[in-house]
Amino acid sequence: MVTLIDGKTTAETIKAELTAEISSFTERKPGLAVIIVGDDPASHYYVNSKQKACTTVGINSFKSELAHDITKAELIEVIQSYNNDDKVDGILLQLPLPASLSADTQEIIDAISATKDVDGLTTTNLGKLLSKSKDAIEPCTPKGCMELLKRYQIEIQGKKAIVIGRSTLVGKPIALLLNNANATVVMAHSKTKNLDKEIKNADIVIAAIGKAEFIKGSLIKEGAVVIDVGINAIEVDGKRKLVGDIEFAEAQNQAEFITPVPGGVGPMTVAMLLKNTLELYQKRKSLAAR
Amino acid sequence: MVTLIDGKTTAETIKAELTAEISSFTERKPGLAVIIVGDDPASHYYVNSKQKACTTVGINSFKSELAHDITKAELIEVIQSYNNDDKVDGILLQLPLPASLSADTQEIIDAISATKDVDGLTTTNLGKLLSKSKDAIEPCTPKGCMELLKRYQIEIQGKKAIVIGRSTLVGKPIALLLNNANATVVMAHSKTKNLDKEIKNADIVIAAIGKAEFIKGSLIKEGAVVIDVGINAIEVDGKRKLVGDIEFAEAQNQAEFITPVPGGVGPMTVAMLLKNTLELYQKRKSLAAR
Repeated sequence: MVTLIDGKTTAETIKAELTAEISSFTERKPGLAVIIVGDDPASHYYVNSKQKACTTVGINSFKSELAHDITKAELIEVIQSYNNDDKVDGILLQLPLPASLSADTQEIIDAISATKDVDGLTTTNLGKLLSKSKDAIEPCTPKGCMELLKRYQIEIQGKKAIVIGRSTLVGKPIALLLNNANATVVMAHSKTKNLDKEIKNADIVIAAIGKAEFIKGSLIKEGAVVIDVGINAIEVDGKRKLVGDIEFAEAQNQAEFITPVPGGVGPMTVAMLLKNTLELYQKRKSLAAR
Repeated sequence: MVTLIDGKTTAETIKAELTAEISSFTERKPGLAVIIVGDDPASHYYVNSKQKACTTVGINSFKSELAHDITKAELIEVIQSYNNDDKVDGILLQLPLPASLSADTQEIIDAISATKDVDGLTTTNLGKLLSKSKDAIEPCTPKGCMELLKRYQIEIQGKKAIVIGRSTLVGKPIALLLNNANATVVMAHSKTKNLDKEIKNADIVIAAIGKAEFIKGSLIKEGAVVIDVGINAIEVDGKRKLVGDIEFAEAQNQAEFITPVPGGVGPMTVAMLLKNTLELYQKRKSLAAR
């Protein structure tokens, strides 16, 4: 019998935990600044859900909506003013940036102060992830995947895991986190030969490629754990539908645990954003108390 | 027929290339500062070979030999004075540090200016490696492995590679570089189950664990490429002998290409140190010219 990994309920549980913790803060509340550039509807939708989630748990949120043709220098100035703003514990730059800025994405992210890097995507923090520093902030989506495995008490040590997709934002950090948790990780990608065989051999399959139902569900090994990071919009009978990178209908017949799309990793990304905001808040507080 | 990957000769070729290039510099020559703490004979031997190699190619080298009980603060002060020294383009902290400092290794490495990080081991540089930044300095031993594959025209794209060992200094950076070169990489380690099977499936085997002949040569797939990073001293009939992490005698019957130990990766590490020093020199020069 397959167990559905319910990211939505898990995220609600985490939010309840955070709410309880934050409600006990008598002084200032944690603060998250969100920066969004341009008018991509999906990005605005995500940013709004993130702000709404902040409100729910008692985190103040601040938003800068910037014109799509803002210059790099202007954008970095906005980031820096949040760096210097004591009300702000975490700074989130909503990605992707518009085409005119996208080549400079990493440089712009690196303008975020290491102490406010809520998404864990600055170069310094990625380095900390690689060197397994205790000080590292785990990027939200990878952390959300790990938290799901943890809350469903899925053993990782010694397991063979495959991560399909090698982006700096998702694939590579997940591979490192799984490696740190003592899985044997295969990093697969578009140039991988025999991808089918690699998937068939994996106890844990993590898909982060962004291609609708790209991975055949029949490839999943019986009893495997499937975490689908992809959220892709397709049309079925003229209606818009969200699907993952893996054929869910088939995969659920093979897997022991599987995340649905939507309602799997997606809500966890937001929950981990809140959790990271709280972590940064507490770090700043303990630094200030020294 | 197996081809021996001759790291010694390849390193000599690279040194000749560097010598030719550096001899054309009419102003100042590149400079490398080497810092060694304590009196470990092997470390002193390595540092001396590195300085000798510098002299050969026309790089100035400076050495600080520090007492084993130096404090972290004092050591960082030495690093900082090299950071501020215009004659110095690269700073190498010989590892491992003595036991009293080893827990702070990464923090001490991070005192090296990013512009002089010749070993590519600062947190910032490791992050750049992960985000595939063009600006990254590739750590010397991983870069040496990649250079051997390149100079022997061994195709990497689409190949299945296994990296055994996941240290921050060697294993993880090699895995990232192979991934960047479009191999499908398995990151294996002491908690890996079925390691034998994983090795048997690999087209490229990279061993970086530091255990004498830990990997049975018979596990190597026929026609595979074997890169042995390990250098371990053992005793045979009362005589000291250096061996790798892989049983060479057996492995050479299976492999298409194989590195010997010694004379494989070892000399390449030094050659890449020289190459990185030159790269940093040229970067500083072009920055100064702006």
